[in-house]
Amino acid sequence: MNIKEYLNEMKALVDNALDRHIPSNNTYPPDIYNSMRYSLFAGGKRLRPILVIASAETVGGKREAVLPFACAIEMIHTYTLIHDDLPAIDNDDFRRGKPTNHKEFGEAIAILAGDALLTMAFQIMSDTRLMPHTNPSVILRAINEIANAVGVFGTIGGQVVDIQSTGKNLDIPTLEYIHTHKTGEMILSAVRAGAILSGCEDDELNALTRYAENIGLAFQVMDDILDVEGESEVMGKTAGSDERMKKITYPAVFGLAESKKIAGRLIDSSIKSLEMFGDRAEVLKDISEYIIARKF
Amino acid sequence: MNIKEYLNEMKALVDNALDRHIPSNNTYPPDIYNSMRYSLFAGGKRLRPILVIASAETVGGKREAVLPFACAIEMIHTYTLIHDDLPAIDNDDFRRGKPTNHKEFGEAIAILAGDALLTMAFQIMSDTRLMPHTNPSVILRAINEIANAVGVFGTIGGQVVDIQSTGKNLDIPTLEYIHTHKTGEMILSAVRAGAILSGCEDDELNALTRYAENIGLAFQVMDDILDVEGESEVMGKTAGSDERMKKITYPAVFGLAESKKIAGRLIDSSIKSLEMFGDRAEVLKDISEYIIARKF
Repeated sequence: MNIKEYLNEMKALVDNALDRHIPSNNTYPPDIYNSMRYSLFAGGKRLRPILVIASAETVGGKREAVLPFACAIEMIHTYTLIHDDLPAIDNDDFRRGKPTNHKEFGEAIAILAGDALLTMAFQIMSDTRLMPHTNPSVILRAINEIANAVGVFGTIGGQVVDIQSTGKNLDIPTLEYIHTHKTGEMILSAVRAGAILSGCEDDELNALTRYAENIGLAFQVMDDILDVEGESEVMGKTAGSDERMKKITYPAVFGLAESKKIAGRLIDSSIKSLEMFGDRAEVLKDISEYIIARKF
Repeated sequence: MNIKEYLNEMKALVDNALDRHIPSNNTYPPDIYNSMRYSLFAGGKRLRPILVIASAETVGGKREAVLPFACAIEMIHTYTLIHDDLPAIDNDDFRRGKPTNHKEFGEAIAILAGDALLTMAFQIMSDTRLMPHTNPSVILRAINEIANAVGVFGTIGGQVVDIQSTGKNLDIPTLEYIHTHKTGEMILSAVRAGAILSGCEDDELNALTRYAENIGLAFQVMDDILDVEGESEVMGKTAGSDERMKKITYPAVFGLAESKKIAGRLIDSSIKSLEMFGDRAEVLKDISEYIIARKF
């Protein structure tokens, strides 16, 4: 199977599972479920859940066994987007070409839909009926990994620094703090959780950690580059918005050409980290190539 | 030990543990930690964490073993207060006599501090190092109990209906939906999690569930009554705010005298549910008495 087929198949698998987890329109009170579904099914490429699955399969795990965590990480990612777009934070009216959640449902429901998606992620990850063949202590370790990554020591800390740095003078340690925390930690925890749930060895986890650190940063550098180069249809947000918002970015600090070199080196390092897996890491390598080719 | 001493001792235990979980002011980025601490240490009576502990001790469990969950439920309770107070939701400027979180730190930090407290609750509950003597599958069951209670099927669903019912005609099923979901489910999960973590028997859990359902509703009815009777210093919010907001409440539907009778009957039922425990349930009985005496 080639990578395109694999990604399509995994996206369908994740989408179907997400659909089953969130009650449909007729459930009371309907607005909150509609709001959750609106952002969850807004056309995301499912990078994070696919990383959970691909990482699991690289160490010999089964996709069905990690599917609940794959869904959970996508719910968490979606909640961060809904809250980031709020008027009090980034004040974005559009995402992926559609009105943002609060534009469609109002701010109150958008705040609560974010809260609900974050909480539902933990409802799913702690539901042992969904993972009958996984050791409970391993499930707990994976939950802890993800909770730490997306909390104040990770994603939220990164978002706080991002907000507070916007419009200020750029400095490289701050830029790196924002990117590793706001984007990197969640990608890292997706890769690590998939492997942990599949009972990986310590050296496998170490290799996958290096892989994930590199693709996480590469992904963010590419996102910054795409924002400058203006391929709105690829990235699903308005081109040039970082510059207008005076966001701190790689191109702003290093220039466009050097930023591309940095992304290339990170991708090379990510692929090198996978050596010990040989052919088993084909999918993860292909994902690296997709990131640098701007397909994620 | 009398109940007052017990409550003071448990509050101190919980406050100390909460203090250890959240890094102090010097941690980067400082605003988010200050904001989390501001609302977490704003003078709450710690009803929910004390219920976790008292429930555990009623079935023979140890307070230290459930202390992480006690802290987690207080963090979750605090996050709901911060988000409820936001301009887009209840738009409250004061809570417990102090400016609300967003008034002190701005809306962006308030939203993120709520998100961070919710997430940190799960960081703590999934940290097995904090509960080395508890079976991992029991920990998972308790996490799942709490996650389901505070998510869209519980607290958040109740909050949505509360927002959407405000200013509309009152009807009793809606009032009951709001109260059981918005307040009741979290109190229920606090009591149940404490017992589950302590390895209780099924009949004990059933009895404690009935106890918690009754005190949860009684607590909300008393909160509605206090709002009418205007003892601002007891309840920590502005008296009469429900009526001004045209919130649906027990006194508005049943009148004040009948609401007090309802609260009294609920408290009687809660105490009756504890019969099987005999003297072991003294603390839980005293908590019921405290609720009807307006001390919680």
